[in-house]
Amino acid sequence: MADFDDEFRRHLRSLIVWRRDVRCFRTDPLPHGMLEELVALSCLAPSVGLSEPWRFVRVNAESRRAGVRAEFERANSEALAGYSGDQARLYAQLKLAGLDRAPVHLAVFVDPGTDKGKGLGRRTMPETLEYSVVGAIVTLWLAARAQGVGLGWVSILEASRVNAILDVPEHWSLIAYLCLGYPEEETQTPELERAGWETRSGATLPLVER
Amino acid sequence: MADFDDEFRRHLRSLIVWRRDVRCFRTDPLPHGMLEELVALSCLAPSVGLSEPWRFVRVNAESRRAGVRAEFERANSEALAGYSGDQARLYAQLKLAGLDRAPVHLAVFVDPGTDKGKGLGRRTMPETLEYSVVGAIVTLWLAARAQGVGLGWVSILEASRVNAILDVPEHWSLIAYLCLGYPEEETQTPELERAGWETRSGATLPLVER
Repeated sequence: MADFDDEFRRHLRSLIVWRRDVRCFRTDPLPHGMLEELVALSCLAPSVGLSEPWRFVRVNAESRRAGVRAEFERANSEALAGYSGDQARLYAQLKLAGLDRAPVHLAVFVDPGTDKGKGLGRRTMPETLEYSVVGAIVTLWLAARAQGVGLGWVSILEASRVNAILDVPEHWSLIAYLCLGYPEEETQTPELERAGWETRSGATLPLVER
Repeated sequence: MADFDDEFRRHLRSLIVWRRDVRCFRTDPLPHGMLEELVALSCLAPSVGLSEPWRFVRVNAESRRAGVRAEFERANSEALAGYSGDQARLYAQLKLAGLDRAPVHLAVFVDPGTDKGKGLGRRTMPETLEYSVVGAIVTLWLAARAQGVGLGWVSILEASRVNAILDVPEHWSLIAYLCLGYPEEETQTPELERAGWETRSGATLPLVER
């Protein structure tokens, strides 16, 4: 059995506490091979029926990155139009993506057509296929932070448009568009809390008993 | 900035490699307070717009546990009927849940009606609300394994029936039904691989470049 001690658990706790959604990146690149290593680790995440349905796409071409940024701007303007008054003013001030500076752009898809796993575990809850990809992303997030690398999850995008911009198979479905790089600053407080948008409840939620 | 060294990263890697879906549990209980501590840690996971939409339900009543076991048996029989030949024979031999012995049953729901986060980040991709709950579960999974506690994710259930069995609000939606406890044995190889159902590709998947 693998053996984890109190010191490891203290550090794991720090990592979980300290992992933030990062939107302000330095432009210096990750060390050679680090992204491949992080993706390989994330592929050890649990997956329903051992389906391993994740598909990782590194976006390098400036034209494709610009296309994604434009799609974010479009979707973000529409989102802003859904708020009014103080909320709209606050929303307009938020920095909701690090697409402008992050050295790494990584799009993560699910392949719903995969035969792997032979359907096991997803007859009544087919959404566990998408959930498996989320598990890989959260694993990547923690592993990246342990290397000092920040991750920001961009969800203000029309998923199907991203398929077209990146020229990936139409039947793949976007789970997340990720920015990675070294953060400009470090903090334990979520940016949305610092900006006054929402406060964190954290551990105060009661456990319901049945 | 939190400081993580090579030794911590080695252990984190071991934890990620070693984290398994556990289906065979010892019946001895978790130490007092440990589940609360693990759930509190998992509530530090990322969530879209800081919505924190997770709802945790500990299932203690024997009648409710029996109801969930019966629902699993029903859904599993239906799943078995979908296979034939060798695959059916193999499926019938798999142990797909630890509901019979695990000392802790934990149902995890999303509350799609939450106002928290004010809708931020989920206009174009509303599924990020469910994904946030998955992030909490994967965090719980890793934190539990660092304590030597195993977790098994049961997805062979009709989600809406679980709401009725547990008498939770109808608008909550089941993300996962989890079994927790100390594993009967330790292994790095997924059970589905040991049983000959599926092999793991792991890190061999290529990173697509665009």
